[in-house]
Amino acid sequence: MFILNNDTPVPLYQQLYSQIREHILAGKLPADARLPSVRQLAIELATSRNTVEGAYQELYAEGYIYSKPRSGYFVSALDQEAAPLSLLKKPRLRSSLSTPAPRFDYDFHPARLAPKSFPAPLWRKLFSECLRETSRELVQYGPPQGELNLRRMIQLYLERSRGVVCDPEQIVICAGLQHSLDMVAQILKGSHSVVAVENPGYHLPRSVFRNHGYEIVPVPVGADGLDLEALASSGGTLAYVTPSHQLPMGCVMPVANRLKLIEWAESGGRLILEDDYDSELRYHGKPIPSLQGLRPRGNIIYLGTFSKVLSPALRLSYLVLPDSLLDAYRRLFHDYFSTVSLLEQRTLAKFMEQGHWDRHIRRMRAIYKKQHDVLIRAVAQRFGSRAEIVGQGAGLHIVLQLPGISLSEAEIISRAAQHGIGLFPFSATCAAGEPAATRLLLGFGGMSASEIEAGIALLSRLCF
Amino acid sequence: MFILNNDTPVPLYQQLYSQIREHILAGKLPADARLPSVRQLAIELATSRNTVEGAYQELYAEGYIYSKPRSGYFVSALDQEAAPLSLLKKPRLRSSLSTPAPRFDYDFHPARLAPKSFPAPLWRKLFSECLRETSRELVQYGPPQGELNLRRMIQLYLERSRGVVCDPEQIVICAGLQHSLDMVAQILKGSHSVVAVENPGYHLPRSVFRNHGYEIVPVPVGADGLDLEALASSGGTLAYVTPSHQLPMGCVMPVANRLKLIEWAESGGRLILEDDYDSELRYHGKPIPSLQGLRPRGNIIYLGTFSKVLSPALRLSYLVLPDSLLDAYRRLFHDYFSTVSLLEQRTLAKFMEQGHWDRHIRRMRAIYKKQHDVLIRAVAQRFGSRAEIVGQGAGLHIVLQLPGISLSEAEIISRAAQHGIGLFPFSATCAAGEPAATRLLLGFGGMSASEIEAGIALLSRLCF
Repeated sequence: MFILNNDTPVPLYQQLYSQIREHILAGKLPADARLPSVRQLAIELATSRNTVEGAYQELYAEGYIYSKPRSGYFVSALDQEAAPLSLLKKPRLRSSLSTPAPRFDYDFHPARLAPKSFPAPLWRKLFSECLRETSRELVQYGPPQGELNLRRMIQLYLERSRGVVCDPEQIVICAGLQHSLDMVAQILKGSHSVVAVENPGYHLPRSVFRNHGYEIVPVPVGADGLDLEALASSGGTLAYVTPSHQLPMGCVMPVANRLKLIEWAESGGRLILEDDYDSELRYHGKPIPSLQGLRPRGNIIYLGTFSKVLSPALRLSYLVLPDSLLDAYRRLFHDYFSTVSLLEQRTLAKFMEQGHWDRHIRRMRAIYKKQHDVLIRAVAQRFGSRAEIVGQGAGLHIVLQLPGISLSEAEIISRAAQHGIGLFPFSATCAAGEPAATRLLLGFGGMSASEIEAGIALLSRLCF
Repeated sequence: MFILNNDTPVPLYQQLYSQIREHILAGKLPADARLPSVRQLAIELATSRNTVEGAYQELYAEGYIYSKPRSGYFVSALDQEAAPLSLLKKPRLRSSLSTPAPRFDYDFHPARLAPKSFPAPLWRKLFSECLRETSRELVQYGPPQGELNLRRMIQLYLERSRGVVCDPEQIVICAGLQHSLDMVAQILKGSHSVVAVENPGYHLPRSVFRNHGYEIVPVPVGADGLDLEALASSGGTLAYVTPSHQLPMGCVMPVANRLKLIEWAESGGRLILEDDYDSELRYHGKPIPSLQGLRPRGNIIYLGTFSKVLSPALRLSYLVLPDSLLDAYRRLFHDYFSTVSLLEQRTLAKFMEQGHWDRHIRRMRAIYKKQHDVLIRAVAQRFGSRAEIVGQGAGLHIVLQLPGISLSEAEIISRAAQHGIGLFPFSATCAAGEPAATRLLLGFGGMSASEIEAGIALLSRLCF
């Protein structure tokens, strides 16, 4: 009835256990059937009593069999309807998974950073130091709100570089903007239900808030950023904004509008979500100070990330909560753990503490300024008066307006892809469908100067 | 009016910018006041025109001043009401933040692992290799669902060790159970609103689902795990269960109950959330196979973690979605990024691929078995017949029932703390307040044999 094989690494008792189990699940051993005694079965299979005893103990522990004192083991009554037809029938590996993302010769994706820019040797050194210092702490959970030293470093950096005034206690370390917003959406759910977002604007906040049951109201963006009159009549009580560098249009919200926006928030218990995602990257003059710094005790949640200057793959971001929300944060999340690796938090804290972060920003700013300037020149040369550049001078992308173009965005993207050019659709930033005019969003962070020049030359030929 | 200081590292144009800006915000320079010409102010301050030009450009870029052609720069009209009173008044550092967590001589916290168990040298080596191989990929986002190779390794491990039958496409890499459940709560929100949880049971799932607006219904746990009749009448359409090792009581759900639970789920479009958190740690016989393996195409979401055997601080977990939920997952999260560092995912994948994970499990099982056995002996010796041990033989904790005790849980915990003993409250696992009888939850993962012996000796004296 059962066959034991000495030539496999699977222990004999497990082989026997599996076979009896399958017989029970398949109904071949009916409910209340008595199993042979340990001695009997051991003789029958020419194996040791330990083998049979081990198998019976497993079956007993999992409830496949029950025991009666001095009578032996019996098969438990199982619901055969519910039993699996095939226990280990492996589903086929679906092919969709293994399809690699398409590679482009010229990839204008706006979230790509310069290919060789990650400070790998330094990161390895700091990581190794942290691992040596930390390995005994890895056996327990880290601080729920994030490493205190990292929060101190971020506080100092934000004060120095962004004019943000806060206490490390207001800072929460998060695993990327989406995770930051996930927390914000939960904190505010009781008191808010409608989020005003910039249109065009970053698509991720729309998804996150929609997934948390919020209504999303798109508010138009003009030359000065979010249209404040439209905001006032939008019905939104939260406003997600990118005032230092509007995503995707690149404009800076003037200070008069900033103060009005702060006033809007304070006059009605409303809240501003200030996403300062790439404020480090400004190529003329110094970075625009934050909104939060204008009103440190205001109704502003400040969001920052390391994805635009260090790496999007490490998943390191933070949020600065106003004092008024700290209680709600603690009430909701007091059982929660940090979602960011303690080792990476410590490595980053060391990176900042030793001044590498500031140096890295300066280095990256110089690199991206060059790439930016090459792109601007290439567009001027190849598109000439047929394109107007919007949002230059900062960040990792520009927008091209092409008033005379007859092709739709989808047509351009498809043509471009056929010629090895990757374009991120501008329409993805629009809250409702495609924009009226065809625009191109051109990221330059991941491209060399020669790729930018060749890519723009090719693209200009495809557009007209 | 303005003072420039050559002895600070702050560039002169920034000093001037800041001072003019403060004058404007403080109302000392009223709206529409004309600023001195660049040449005038440069002479007045005995500085270069570039300095003044730089300051004006910054102020202009941020909207503090406007320009009229051939007339110069003028102060913008700002809402003075909204202007900050003090721009950089630093809030005091609140003391609560810097209070370190209390340290105990004997810490019975159930989530602590053996102090020297993290495989640091190996992890450093594999991490360094991954960094070398990956550094050029760190400049863009990693795969949203997690590294394919890590998902393959997890799939193989789950099939081999847990009987889980799935495809890597069903696996999502997450930053800990709480993040896994965050996603699950969002996926199921449209079709479910009531979650049945084990009582006593892990407190984190209750918090996560409550934060997502679910109603939580506690269902009692008996010797066979979740009470299935109580479940059927609970009104819950989701059931969060720990069938291989009930948290905290340690019982195993017998296969007859498992099949009934599967039937419960399938008969009414209900869902089982199977948390298999520490299934690797079973000290007699082999691990109990998973529920998911009994019905691979059933309504089961399988949840696993690396927090119990490798490290809780690295934040590495996964969920296995049934085919029926993959569309909903993709629909909700198609804009989302992974929340787990690509470097740590790759390091873990290598760790598993090279067989270190299996070896590490065996090593940890041997270590914890010893600590477990020491604890059982110490309790028997010190508590004798006054304590009944529940849930032994697996995991990282046991439960003591103390029928004759007159002290409340709070009294014991407070006394214990005074004597250097840290106890995690059993009542935290109870859905509604304290349990009827006083129970102690004793984790042994983070303690040496001698600490366990001394701690139990001391604790037994405090209890009676």
